[in-house]
Amino acid sequence: MPEIEIVLCEPLYEGNIGFTARVMKNFGFYNLTLINPPPIGDEAIARSSHARDILENARHVSSLDEVIKESNILIATTGEVSKTVSNSMRMPYYAPSELRDIIENLNGRVSILFGRENWGLSNEEVAKCDIICTIPASHIYPIINISHAVGIIVYELANIKRGTYELASRTEMDALYDHFNIFLDAIDHQEYKRENTLIMLRRIFGRNALTIREVSTFHGLLRRAENQIRGITKDKE
Amino acid sequence: MPEIEIVLCEPLYEGNIGFTARVMKNFGFYNLTLINPPPIGDEAIARSSHARDILENARHVSSLDEVIKESNILIATTGEVSKTVSNSMRMPYYAPSELRDIIENLNGRVSILFGRENWGLSNEEVAKCDIICTIPASHIYPIINISHAVGIIVYELANIKRGTYELASRTEMDALYDHFNIFLDAIDHQEYKRENTLIMLRRIFGRNALTIREVSTFHGLLRRAENQIRGITKDKE
Repeated sequence: MPEIEIVLCEPLYEGNIGFTARVMKNFGFYNLTLINPPPIGDEAIARSSHARDILENARHVSSLDEVIKESNILIATTGEVSKTVSNSMRMPYYAPSELRDIIENLNGRVSILFGRENWGLSNEEVAKCDIICTIPASHIYPIINISHAVGIIVYELANIKRGTYELASRTEMDALYDHFNIFLDAIDHQEYKRENTLIMLRRIFGRNALTIREVSTFHGLLRRAENQIRGITKDKE
Repeated sequence: MPEIEIVLCEPLYEGNIGFTARVMKNFGFYNLTLINPPPIGDEAIARSSHARDILENARHVSSLDEVIKESNILIATTGEVSKTVSNSMRMPYYAPSELRDIIENLNGRVSILFGRENWGLSNEEVAKCDIICTIPASHIYPIINISHAVGIIVYELANIKRGTYELASRTEMDALYDHFNIFLDAIDHQEYKRENTLIMLRRIFGRNALTIREVSTFHGLLRRAENQIRGITKDKE
């Protein structure tokens, strides 16, 4: 992955800058550049929460050209609304989920631009960008708050895989079904129903992959039931 | 898709409720339920922006059980931090991108729960849920603001496809390469370089699918160059 920089272009509200810093850190991004930001005060700091470091280390510049000078690829994020067939400057555009594929093999610095809260990026700014990215949104109300837009982009770019949990293997599942078979003996399940019951159990557990822990819990439940039944039977003898 | 409801479980800050309403509307979700929310005031209204309708129509309830009564499936969203192998209650869990596949064929109402800003959902609340969903985040700072977490979930569930733009067909691209070939004649391109140059042009344009409009712009550029050259040649004669 190239070095990625989030650039807020003349943001109006410090609160949005704080939230942007926070959501960047949530997904492991640290380079924030602010073009002509408002004064950074208590609200930005409060909203940045544990990402105050990103806020304090943010690069402040006074023009987009300063960003361009040190960047290899510029990506403009634009709203759905500005898209018309006639506006070729903002075409073709990519969805956030496509962005990762486009940039992951690039070297150098990729700067992702987010426009002002009230009117986004100007045509001049967009014209200077290499790639256009649009977050697909509802046509009823497509204007996404800037920090939420950043959040979705960094979420997609981070593409952090969810942690894995150990699913039970085929052998472990078969052992569980075998145990159920023994359990059916213990509860004196009617023999003519047995095959269908075993298939049904396979269907139920098959459509919900079980973790190793869940399988072991089930063995425990069956074992306790068997022990109880055995105890009762013994008492009767 | 089932009817989807976003449930904020005892949110502390009205601002987050406003932002939640806004980002829900951005992705076409309208059902918001608030369990014991703080008073909804100016800050919530300001942050909801054009989603004030969602804020005003939000259902207010005083316990999770009221949500459960009218819901078919409950999904708990939990932070990465709470995940340990020993905490089987919060396992197995799914990523937001997996959630859509799980619920899209369900009927009825699916309620997606988001916990308090300071300590999330309680174990008791998680225990009442059918499915666990976790947004994969950086281990350095995984605590995502509640409205940003909602944003990522609704973005994934909406799965709105980006608008399409008409890409040039194979025939149109071939016509463009043919035009370049004529252009090479016009500029008196050295014959021994021609094949390689044509291949290089194919490689450049091939890795960036062109829109119909872009192709037509290129034809225009080539044609103008050819006309100029022809004019100059004519002047010389």
